[in-house]
Amino acid sequence: MIIVNTGNGKGKTTAAVGQIIRSLGRGWKVCLIQLFKGKEFYGEQKILKGLKGLDFYCFAPKHPGCFPGVYRASLVSDCGKALEQFEKALNSKKKYDLIVLEEFNIALRDSFLKAEPLLELLKHKPSNVNVFITGRSAPKALLELADIVTEMKEVKHHYHNGVLAKKGIEF
Amino acid sequence: MIIVNTGNGKGKTTAAVGQIIRSLGRGWKVCLIQLFKGKEFYGEQKILKGLKGLDFYCFAPKHPGCFPGVYRASLVSDCGKALEQFEKALNSKKKYDLIVLEEFNIALRDSFLKAEPLLELLKHKPSNVNVFITGRSAPKALLELADIVTEMKEVKHHYHNGVLAKKGIEF
Repeated sequence: MIIVNTGNGKGKTTAAVGQIIRSLGRGWKVCLIQLFKGKEFYGEQKILKGLKGLDFYCFAPKHPGCFPGVYRASLVSDCGKALEQFEKALNSKKKYDLIVLEEFNIALRDSFLKAEPLLELLKHKPSNVNVFITGRSAPKALLELADIVTEMKEVKHHYHNGVLAKKGIEF
Repeated sequence: MIIVNTGNGKGKTTAAVGQIIRSLGRGWKVCLIQLFKGKEFYGEQKILKGLKGLDFYCFAPKHPGCFPGVYRASLVSDCGKALEQFEKALNSKKKYDLIVLEEFNIALRDSFLKAEPLLELLKHKPSNVNVFITGRSAPKALLELADIVTEMKEVKHHYHNGVLAKKGIEF
């Protein structure tokens, strides 16, 4: 099964984290591959690292939208490594039940990653491996391939009243 | 801060679970009050029970939509107890940073719970307590009170192709 969380609202990453917790609760083996999230920036990372049954990889820790000095070439290289890690995970002897590709939609949107190789991996994945992909602006071809697509739609957000991202809530 | 996850798509509960993980990762004290979720039915419950810093309550384990034999009077009574637990949590010496009210929107929609007492508690809550409310069909008055509202909008779901809810993914 392929699940996609997209849209401009809060809840894409947190729902992926919740999905990991649910799957681990079923005794599933889970692999999380994160882009643009640092290694120790998000509150959930501390808890996730301590959970049995989860392997956790971070690539391209800084997105240029937040860190303007980041080189494009290094992002393309890092996102390529993340894709390699995904291919390894699909074929791993660990036999993951769930692989989460965090913010891969953003890498596609910003052309750090080409869509074709990712779509090919998804089309030919072992049928028992579930893949969960997050990030706003998911491309149409991915939506067509997916079994479940949720758009997290922002109805209201205190950001627009000048409130900054809050530790514990947004990160 | 008051956060609401509503809409007909997948991701409301999993995002609340992810939010709990994020908040615990920041050392926050969290209280989860669940409605209509059984006590051991959802995969995430096994993991959540083992996490330090989280207190976890379940009320009204069965919703009549899934279990037609459930009496309305017992649901009204159970949802009332859940609201009492929320009031206790708001004023607890434990000083929760986050209280999650799972599926309370459904209790409001189905009139197992009246909106006014819940809204009153929210309006007069201690300002440092964050409250996260989930469930489709959130009432307008709650949306007006909230700081962040996300609509989880179903774009595509394999249910509609006759596929049943999958263990590890949907529960």
